[in-house]
Amino acid sequence: MRKEKLEELKKYINELKTIEVIKTNENPKFLNIERNYYKLNNGKSVPREKLLKNKTDGSASIILPLTVDNNTVLVVQPRVNTKETVLVELPAGYIEHDEKPISAAIRELTEETGYVPEKLQFIDSYYQDQGCMSAYNYSYIAFGCRKKQAQNLDINEYIRYFECKYEEALELVELGYIKDINSKYTLEKSRQYVKSKL
Amino acid sequence: MRKEKLEELKKYINELKTIEVIKTNENPKFLNIERNYYKLNNGKSVPREKLLKNKTDGSASIILPLTVDNNTVLVVQPRVNTKETVLVELPAGYIEHDEKPISAAIRELTEETGYVPEKLQFIDSYYQDQGCMSAYNYSYIAFGCRKKQAQNLDINEYIRYFECKYEEALELVELGYIKDINSKYTLEKSRQYVKSKL
Repeated sequence: MRKEKLEELKKYINELKTIEVIKTNENPKFLNIERNYYKLNNGKSVPREKLLKNKTDGSASIILPLTVDNNTVLVVQPRVNTKETVLVELPAGYIEHDEKPISAAIRELTEETGYVPEKLQFIDSYYQDQGCMSAYNYSYIAFGCRKKQAQNLDINEYIRYFECKYEEALELVELGYIKDINSKYTLEKSRQYVKSKL
Repeated sequence: MRKEKLEELKKYINELKTIEVIKTNENPKFLNIERNYYKLNNGKSVPREKLLKNKTDGSASIILPLTVDNNTVLVVQPRVNTKETVLVELPAGYIEHDEKPISAAIRELTEETGYVPEKLQFIDSYYQDQGCMSAYNYSYIAFGCRKKQAQNLDINEYIRYFECKYEEALELVELGYIKDINSKYTLEKSRQYVKSKL
């Protein structure tokens, strides 16, 4: 990992750290829970609960971007529920109602980083948390990415993007900067596709 | 995949399918949501929500069992929120309050399957869903497993276990029977450890 790149990353992480938690008794607005009973083919009935995110099932697209210079682009954002309070990840985001996973991938990559891809390669799909969600996620590699526009973030969304070598992104996994399963699995599964291109 | 093993698996899947959903307005008992504000180092305050599972952060241990005969052991259980309503997975379960991840791994493997391991090998750890949870999961390989006791399941828990060759478990990923990210990532990352033992 180049020293100046690691310094740049640490600057973003520091900027987005949580310095204070203000506890509230406010009702949730984004997350929502349903509880139902399910009759099984073995004759038993079981109660189970389901988490909804923003009234959707919470499915997401995850994107490994590769630029025309064979760099990748990571995002740094507040993850207030984690010990670190800030994580480095692959760009990703929720699939909107009636949106195709590949369209969500292109939209989220562009919104979070301003990079626009030439072509997407599907890597894999999987349940995120099958015990309490229907969320089914999709991983892609975005080839031929170019920085074409500014970020387009939601209110209360603070994201820094970070361009580095693909091998440096793999190093950031080993160094413990990238530690969510969506990013780790996508990086792991994409190795075979990326190696042949570099 | 041996034909008779696939037939055995299909029998378990059929037995645990959801045949009817009985909708309720009951309050959730297992899942719980908190909403707070977080002051960031950049001067901004953001609202964020956090999902709790059974009053814990929802961290889990995931286990790839290898028997003394170099087979593996999978579990089949109702996953009522998925399209399939039943999934095939690696044994896994929530880490209890004050429990070590490796102890949870041994306990859950034994409860779900009745197999007892000789030795556990840590594979990796990762955030499950960092946007709305603190859940941090741990993956292990359990070497030298032997069927020593009966299953010990919770009320409303219906799990079938299924012994097959390690290579057949990898095939079940390709065939679309295993499709949750915890099982897929653990199987993927464990290849290097398992290959040298088989």
